[in-house]
Amino acid sequence: MDLTAQAIKRLPYYLQHLRFLREKGVETISAASIASALKLNEVQVRKDIALVSSCKGKPRVGFPVNNLISDIEACLGYNRLNTAILIGAGCMGQALLINTAFPKYGLDIKAAFDINSDIVGSTICDKHIYPLEYLEEYCDKNEIQIGIITSPANTAQDICDRLLACGIKAIWNFALLTLDVPEDILVYNENLVGTLGFFSQYFKEDNTNRENRS
Amino acid sequence: MDLTAQAIKRLPYYLQHLRFLREKGVETISAASIASALKLNEVQVRKDIALVSSCKGKPRVGFPVNNLISDIEACLGYNRLNTAILIGAGCMGQALLINTAFPKYGLDIKAAFDINSDIVGSTICDKHIYPLEYLEEYCDKNEIQIGIITSPANTAQDICDRLLACGIKAIWNFALLTLDVPEDILVYNENLVGTLGFFSQYFKEDNTNRENRS
Repeated sequence: MDLTAQAIKRLPYYLQHLRFLREKGVETISAASIASALKLNEVQVRKDIALVSSCKGKPRVGFPVNNLISDIEACLGYNRLNTAILIGAGCMGQALLINTAFPKYGLDIKAAFDINSDIVGSTICDKHIYPLEYLEEYCDKNEIQIGIITSPANTAQDICDRLLACGIKAIWNFALLTLDVPEDILVYNENLVGTLGFFSQYFKEDNTNRENRS
Repeated sequence: MDLTAQAIKRLPYYLQHLRFLREKGVETISAASIASALKLNEVQVRKDIALVSSCKGKPRVGFPVNNLISDIEACLGYNRLNTAILIGAGCMGQALLINTAFPKYGLDIKAAFDINSDIVGSTICDKHIYPLEYLEEYCDKNEIQIGIITSPANTAQDICDRLLACGIKAIWNFALLTLDVPEDILVYNENLVGTLGFFSQYFKEDNTNRENRS
């Protein structure tokens, strides 16, 4: 079964909501109730559930919460941990290192690397920060699937090249740079400042009006 | 002129590259060279430039870097600062507070709010962290356009309601929750764990093969 990018982005919201319900002791849930909580169309919810789960909703009872959770986890591959290392343990890097939710979404960050001697040697949430020159040796000793780049843009390509040379096949790139990689490598760019364009566009007219008034 | 969401997401990469060139003293740049650096099609680059700028490229010289930068900044509204406050100064929040690039992309985070007495009263990169109960009074005294929610999902809707009651019109939401807002409010959801689905999908087959082998 092929999941669209939209579905892959949408399903974590289902999971977060269903896990929240499970914690509260809720055992069954209707598609209408999920749709309302997630501000989605009920038809969309039924389609999404059919896509990822063989659970059948029972009239006046709904879907079993537990089964839906495990089906979504299995479908997205969240029930297995993929190993990752992170390069650049500045603030963005540290925010990712301490994110306790990631293992619940299939990501296990094993260690971090940095060049800053103030933080090299320290540990953040049980993740050791190694000197960058140890990268190759570490990857040789540990099976790592994903490289997370949270270093400055001007170092990102070099770091990416080193990660690929270590046999890493997927890059989660937070640097604002288009990485040059072979076709078989998965790169996902996280573009936070890109989002800011939506806000500045939204307020642009407001600002112009304000200036014209004053 | 209407920018597509794709263009809004793409333009910061131009800006980053052009600012980098300017720092290196480069005065003119060809569309082909931009295309190569950004791994885009040259036709796409020429279209993007025509969309945001009246600069004409000169044969064998290219486009003036400085003018391109200011045209992109003006088009995206990055040449003006939009004011923001941030709710939830945990690690993700702190990563945003110390991001020195944001002002260059039009975002000015003025202050943060939290309930954790260990950090309330402290200052991160000149941004004061106030107790959450001071939110309404602060917004009354300061003109704030954007609310950034980096609090846990179970508090996000309540915080969102309070921000909107303060007159805030746009929300940058990092909590994994679909916020309930009136139609005229701009919400942009940042869904980091959503990205993880792409990686787990990519490695799912790998993992299955490995299991079958062992």
